[in-house]
Amino acid sequence: LTPETAAALERKTKNARFVWDAYRRFVQMFASVVAGVAHEPFEQALSGAKEKAGVKDDTGLTADALKDLTSLEKRIYASEKGSAFPDDPRDQLRAAIEAVFASYWGKKAEDYRRIEKIASSLGTAVTVQAMVFGNTGDRSGTGVAFTRDPTTGEDRLYGEWLANAQGEDVVAGIRTPRPIAQLETALPEVFSSLQRVKETLERRFRDAQDIEFTWEDGKLYLLQTRTAKRGAVAAVRIAADLLRARTIDAKEAVSRVEPRQFQQLLARIFDVEAKAKAQKDGRVLASGLPASPGAASGPVVFNPEDAEAFAKTGKPAILVRRMTSPEDIAGMHAAAGLLTSVGGMTSHAAVVARGMGKCCIVGCALLRIDEAANCFQAGDRWVKKGERISIDGFTGEVILGDLPTQDSEVVEVVQGRRNPATSRVFGDVDTVLRAADSVRRLRVRANADTPEDARVARYLGAEGIGLVRTEHMFFAEDRILPMREMILADTVLARKVALAKLLPYQRADFAGMFKAMAGLPVTIRLLDPPLHEFLPETDAIQRAVASRIGMDLHELQERVKAHQELNPMLGHRGCRLGVSHPEIYEMQARAVIEAACEVSHQDIVVKPEIMVPFIGVAKELEILRKLIVDEAERVLAERGEKIAYSVGTMIEIPRAAITANQVARFADFFSFGTNDLTQMTFGISRDDAEKAFLPDYEAKGILPENPFAVLDRDGVGGLVEIAVERGRREKPGLKCGICGEHGGDPSSIAFCHKVGLDYVSCSPYRVPIARLAAARAALSS
Amino acid sequence: LTPETAAALERKTKNARFVWDAYRRFVQMFASVVAGVAHEPFEQALSGAKEKAGVKDDTGLTADALKDLTSLEKRIYASEKGSAFPDDPRDQLRAAIEAVFASYWGKKAEDYRRIEKIASSLGTAVTVQAMVFGNTGDRSGTGVAFTRDPTTGEDRLYGEWLANAQGEDVVAGIRTPRPIAQLETALPEVFSSLQRVKETLERRFRDAQDIEFTWEDGKLYLLQTRTAKRGAVAAVRIAADLLRARTIDAKEAVSRVEPRQFQQLLARIFDVEAKAKAQKDGRVLASGLPASPGAASGPVVFNPEDAEAFAKTGKPAILVRRMTSPEDIAGMHAAAGLLTSVGGMTSHAAVVARGMGKCCIVGCALLRIDEAANCFQAGDRWVKKGERISIDGFTGEVILGDLPTQDSEVVEVVQGRRNPATSRVFGDVDTVLRAADSVRRLRVRANADTPEDARVARYLGAEGIGLVRTEHMFFAEDRILPMREMILADTVLARKVALAKLLPYQRADFAGMFKAMAGLPVTIRLLDPPLHEFLPETDAIQRAVASRIGMDLHELQERVKAHQELNPMLGHRGCRLGVSHPEIYEMQARAVIEAACEVSHQDIVVKPEIMVPFIGVAKELEILRKLIVDEAERVLAERGEKIAYSVGTMIEIPRAAITANQVARFADFFSFGTNDLTQMTFGISRDDAEKAFLPDYEAKGILPENPFAVLDRDGVGGLVEIAVERGRREKPGLKCGICGEHGGDPSSIAFCHKVGLDYVSCSPYRVPIARLAAARAALSS
Repeated sequence: LTPETAAALERKTKNARFVWDAYRRFVQMFASVVAGVAHEPFEQALSGAKEKAGVKDDTGLTADALKDLTSLEKRIYASEKGSAFPDDPRDQLRAAIEAVFASYWGKKAEDYRRIEKIASSLGTAVTVQAMVFGNTGDRSGTGVAFTRDPTTGEDRLYGEWLANAQGEDVVAGIRTPRPIAQLETALPEVFSSLQRVKETLERRFRDAQDIEFTWEDGKLYLLQTRTAKRGAVAAVRIAADLLRARTIDAKEAVSRVEPRQFQQLLARIFDVEAKAKAQKDGRVLASGLPASPGAASGPVVFNPEDAEAFAKTGKPAILVRRMTSPEDIAGMHAAAGLLTSVGGMTSHAAVVARGMGKCCIVGCALLRIDEAANCFQAGDRWVKKGERISIDGFTGEVILGDLPTQDSEVVEVVQGRRNPATSRVFGDVDTVLRAADSVRRLRVRANADTPEDARVARYLGAEGIGLVRTEHMFFAEDRILPMREMILADTVLARKVALAKLLPYQRADFAGMFKAMAGLPVTIRLLDPPLHEFLPETDAIQRAVASRIGMDLHELQERVKAHQELNPMLGHRGCRLGVSHPEIYEMQARAVIEAACEVSHQDIVVKPEIMVPFIGVAKELEILRKLIVDEAERVLAERGEKIAYSVGTMIEIPRAAITANQVARFADFFSFGTNDLTQMTFGISRDDAEKAFLPDYEAKGILPENPFAVLDRDGVGGLVEIAVERGRREKPGLKCGICGEHGGDPSSIAFCHKVGLDYVSCSPYRVPIARLAAARAALSS
Repeated sequence: LTPETAAALERKTKNARFVWDAYRRFVQMFASVVAGVAHEPFEQALSGAKEKAGVKDDTGLTADALKDLTSLEKRIYASEKGSAFPDDPRDQLRAAIEAVFASYWGKKAEDYRRIEKIASSLGTAVTVQAMVFGNTGDRSGTGVAFTRDPTTGEDRLYGEWLANAQGEDVVAGIRTPRPIAQLETALPEVFSSLQRVKETLERRFRDAQDIEFTWEDGKLYLLQTRTAKRGAVAAVRIAADLLRARTIDAKEAVSRVEPRQFQQLLARIFDVEAKAKAQKDGRVLASGLPASPGAASGPVVFNPEDAEAFAKTGKPAILVRRMTSPEDIAGMHAAAGLLTSVGGMTSHAAVVARGMGKCCIVGCALLRIDEAANCFQAGDRWVKKGERISIDGFTGEVILGDLPTQDSEVVEVVQGRRNPATSRVFGDVDTVLRAADSVRRLRVRANADTPEDARVARYLGAEGIGLVRTEHMFFAEDRILPMREMILADTVLARKVALAKLLPYQRADFAGMFKAMAGLPVTIRLLDPPLHEFLPETDAIQRAVASRIGMDLHELQERVKAHQELNPMLGHRGCRLGVSHPEIYEMQARAVIEAACEVSHQDIVVKPEIMVPFIGVAKELEILRKLIVDEAERVLAERGEKIAYSVGTMIEIPRAAITANQVARFADFFSFGTNDLTQMTFGISRDDAEKAFLPDYEAKGILPENPFAVLDRDGVGGLVEIAVERGRREKPGLKCGICGEHGGDPSSIAFCHKVGLDYVSCSPYRVPIARLAAARAALSS
């Protein structure tokens, strides 16, 4: 704009006020954005003009007043900048273009690219185009919209608009925009243009779009379009809809959904009606950043000690802090949820909460927290220690009072409490997962200790059980006694007698697993934890056990003491028990094969895989493999049966990884136990460290993530790579999987794909995430 | 021999008795050695002949009687073997030659080769030569001798002889042989021939020989010569003498002494005179295999429980068992020494005792042990529980009663209680070690925590200190209180106040080390163990500490409890403390540099190397290196000094080895802490395992040796190799050493040489062994 073009425009539009208002805005924007002049003097000039004219609003200024203001602003520009405001449009354009490039190389943009890992060498472009105006009258206007509902994913325009306004007015919040549905009646031709644009854009970009638009005298112009951000439900629905419409293929559908969005579909949520009522009743106190999904209600506390105290009384609290620090860990652990007023999505509270899987809101700046006085203020409402609030980790809302929570729709379906046919979201999840299955190479199994776990896992698509922890079966009331008898026995014979009592339980357990996973492989890990974990600790239980098994109390206490170890994690456990007490693994091998025989008699295909834990030396596996095979063959001979079974090992000790070529000689498969492997590779005791220095290490950036949640590629991953390479060098095609917690973590799954594992095994509810992550890994490799 | 050659020989020698005695012996030996016929019938025939002749001794039989006996033996042969005794000398020779080859492929020889790792493909040869006879009269005879004293190494013939006898008679023990010195007067020309032979053989083989010889009518014949076995003192003296005489060069001298012999020169011994008296008094009860060197006296016990009970009363016992088993470990640990009646040098007792460095005798078959009755019988002497005996692990002697023990001569010299000029053995050791120094590439340092340790290490040839464990300095009476104050402090300021009290102690400690090692590098490891190791455990001490530092007892107990960990080995220790409490390492860095400044002011060259322990993640070292360098530069700036120092790290966590390229960026040196690295690589808690399954694992052959004594090459060694390779790829020439216990183990030192480490560091008294082992490693590579 120049005085000449402004005059021409005035002649053309016959709307002097509009032209001079635009000119004035242009000068101000040019000064601040292009020339970098501070904007305070311009605002003072505007205020002065309004005062002089005796009006309160910009719109009250006449064309002449605006013209004068423009001249004043140009003078301000010249005095602030030290050079006259350019009146040649070419100079204006050149300066504006240069300003765009300069901003690309500015500190803010550089920082942004560094954080978002965008290469600076990509560069930027400047598009020069004619301006359109939404503020030329009632047949002009502006709006923003999503081409599909960003919350539900429904296929309809979702957004807001303002008549006679520029784009800035919508976001500035001075005028209240109207919902997009009202555009259809107000300006049907603009709305139908918008509908056509929606179709065109979605066809072109094959995804839902987030658009900005303006119409000038009834003609629609698109200002911007970009891929729409969306919530978890919407992401799944949009991907499934586009796939069904064949707009995208399976690969693209898979790339559209983030595994962590799947996780959100499984988290507990607030009862939908109760929450809507709370919103309506004005009980939403404030809103912050949703740092970790979930829903939690509880009494408010303001320090970690109180959080621990409340947890002990069975009423876990919401811990409210300005920010958290490593000293707060115990309290954070004890809390039902976390709420802070300071910090972003990567603050200590946010990182730790996500690691703990705990509902968390951070950066809720509107809360004024007085930790010393044990209260916070939100608006004019004071909330004191012990008062109950609810926090929504999906939305960041802080709500006064309790709200009932419920399982997510997907969980309800999986648990058989809802008909899958009535669940739109479950159907969409299923569609996306089938797409994922067609793309992935990695198999997905589940870790399960009960037939019910196995059933859920299978329902969610598990292709086998990668880890049955047999020891979890020994803690039931009727089994722990013979277990203790076995451990406390002082002769092999007495031990065998006790083991004989355990055999029927184990056989039944395994039969249940085999049935639940009919036709699919089931990997059963033999006894792993140190025996003292099964022994009674308190005096009262020791007395009871002593009298039940007829042992002198003092004697029993001495034996319990003898089983204690300084570092039980590295102690007499796993296959070391198998070596020193062969009769234990013999009983377990027998139980596995007897169960397999029983189930296969019911015309069910069984695929037992017996897994020996905690191997550090190949010779251990050589000895135990022989013991297991001998016992298995004995059972099969007794029954005159033939059942195929395999014997493999967990790789969870660094030495087993390093000497994998030796270990592979005696293993039909490797399963990486990355929980223990991480502990030993890092020299970290997880139980101790997560309460002590580990969160501090994450906060200080020494570790990018908790290595027990996300596989450490350089260290632990380096050992996994060595083991796979050396194992398969000795035994080409050796089956390799992972059964640590990392088996359900998307980034770790990508690594497993990369190093050529055959399968991942994770907890049942993580199976969908794993299926999706495995497919995404296949796509990005 | 055939009837014809016998008759011819009879005519020639005119000694029919000699001929027919030889013939009879020939038949019998041919039958048993060549034809494999049982020897009982032949012995019965001999007894019958003696009875018939009415004589008691073989020599009483006449030529005719012997002739008849020969015929009878041939008949026995024919009936036992089923074929006539061969009378054609060609048949006899062929059969004898074939028997030699057959024996080479026999089970006994195969077993021997397998155990001694000798390739069967080497094969054997048969030398056929004319027989000479030592039993043709008084001018004939036979003997065995060492060319040097096998105990002291003195350069003189040492052996025994018999006149008119065959070689077998000397070893059979029927006649008592005479000492070699008497041969000089009895048969001077034979003795002087023997002296010439000694010179010739030693010149030829360049080593002391073990020879067998016979003279027939005054003419000396050598039957066999082989390298003489020798004790530790002799080995060192012979090597030193031959080196001084330039018969051998430094390399050969080094190859003549086994590192474990050096170790024997350091073990405690019985008071020489007291033991000689006990021998003279007939107090030697029996003799077994010397399985583990040392000298121990104590009350006899017959089961591990009693061994533990005696140890608790402060009177460690000698544990006497038929054999030991894994259940006995705790008792073996508690005992002063071990004695078994069954088992060889590789039995459970022998292996475990050597691992524990405990004096042990095994396979003492003459003891009749009644474990149930708590006594043993040796000859006609009964020894009951509680009676005192002494056992000599060098010789295998079991002696009744107590014997005083003393330090070895070498230890007396090192500790300044004996003038080295008066110690022959120390001089010889020194000669051999100087030879070793000229051959080896690996540097040898010592682990030392006190200036006195450093002095001993330097006296024994250490070229620096590879490990100063600073925490050992905090347990002294006057230091533990500020240490506890520091740990229990609840603010950084309070911690700094306590640390300021510790600073002068640390500075003085380090100054002492720098002075003792003037001109040589001293590697100081910063605080490593978890803090709870310093805290008071008992109620009484907790009370005392609480009152001294003015803290509420309950509060103190809570803080002590808060420091406890489930697996302290993998806990909050090492550099993790440095990260969470930077002020600790700051104080230590300051103490190191202040001490260095002080000492260098006395014109002593100081070479401080600051070592950060327990690094698992490169970022830890990046942070701590900066902290240390900042503090060091601050000290140097304050004092206006310039002192070169370096900052490196221990590689003791598997992850640090795997990511050594990342760690190397911030390290001036690597020092492998193979004790912890072994624990984590194996997933073994040493404290627990050595009392539990580890000895069992060795006994079962799952582990060839205790991996804490001998570096596990495949597993832990594999990680060391990876770390050296990756570390030097990032930083060529990176200095690498080892400071775990393995630094003093010969086999581990050979590995360190092979993978290209720069130095090994071991306990001061192992420095000589390490110097020798390093030289031997250089020779065999």
